[in-house]
Amino acid sequence: MTTAPVESTAPEQGTGRDAILRAARRAFALRAYAEVTLRGIAADAGVSPSLIVKRFGSKEQLFHTVADFQPVADELFAAPPAELGRHLVLTMLRLRDEFRGDPLLRVVFSLGRDDERTLLRDRFREQVTARLSGLLPGPDAELRAELIAGQLLGLGATLSLHRPGAGHLASAERVADLYAPGLQRLIEGD
Amino acid sequence: MTTAPVESTAPEQGTGRDAILRAARRAFALRAYAEVTLRGIAADAGVSPSLIVKRFGSKEQLFHTVADFQPVADELFAAPPAELGRHLVLTMLRLRDEFRGDPLLRVVFSLGRDDERTLLRDRFREQVTARLSGLLPGPDAELRAELIAGQLLGLGATLSLHRPGAGHLASAERVADLYAPGLQRLIEGD
Repeated sequence: MTTAPVESTAPEQGTGRDAILRAARRAFALRAYAEVTLRGIAADAGVSPSLIVKRFGSKEQLFHTVADFQPVADELFAAPPAELGRHLVLTMLRLRDEFRGDPLLRVVFSLGRDDERTLLRDRFREQVTARLSGLLPGPDAELRAELIAGQLLGLGATLSLHRPGAGHLASAERVADLYAPGLQRLIEGD
Repeated sequence: MTTAPVESTAPEQGTGRDAILRAARRAFALRAYAEVTLRGIAADAGVSPSLIVKRFGSKEQLFHTVADFQPVADELFAAPPAELGRHLVLTMLRLRDEFRGDPLLRVVFSLGRDDERTLLRDRFREQVTARLSGLLPGPDAELRAELIAGQLLGLGATLSLHRPGAGHLASAERVADLYAPGLQRLIEGD
């Protein structure tokens, strides 16, 4: 048996799982569902379409994986309120490195798109904002959760926008020193 | 002389100028330059293509108007550093109302697009972030300007994402009470 040529282009990233997810996040954020093909995602990820089917199932199942913010929310919210501000910043920066992209920002690309991408907005509101709201002490928890979500999206947006920039040259600890206090204030309320 | 039928669909917004700009911001953010047509923008704005040409000139000139963040930056930065945090929040909220959309968020839609939309990123970095950096006292002004730009983009992103949401029900003063202190801290440095 010979290896199919299309599989010989598989990248070094071990199983190609991360490359598939990266390509899928990009594809489903930037294009309408009907225009996305597993073949296109496979080409972008440097794997075969059959590998995607084997790992993630159908295009619909892959889309649901991309629209699922729960694994990221699990990591973001894994700290008590008193330490959450700094934890949020450091976790965002770590996940951006691991994802080689932003873990949340794709929801912004779904704005103004009234197609299947509304699922990303629904999931984000439920898995990130509403969950966070339930973790916050004090009044106006829903409003504060929205504003915290905004600061997380904004951190990702500005780092992606200013590349290379001061945020990429600074240490994660320094970014957290500057960015976490505002988050911590929103976490603790007035 | 009779009015051309296509002009009779002009909306109430007086001259249609705001409607044209709104439609143009949307079109140039969401689609590649080559795919944008004045005809499409005109249809979206409810005006005639010839009105767009009369008001804004060619498609290229209209694109440069859309990519220009200076008028917004003029309004955002029109306060001394000691009051800038609150001014930024209140101005963002007012401009979002006036624009019936976000005054900055289109730059986020240009991320990952290596076509003419890179102009939006270049202009934003120069007209918003670099200008802001020059206004900030203290060390790490460039990094702090990037993080402030992030919080402004994040405010717009979260309000657009959570619609209807707590941020829309809250007064501008209440949103500023919560969101401005983190900005003010970034403005003043450590």
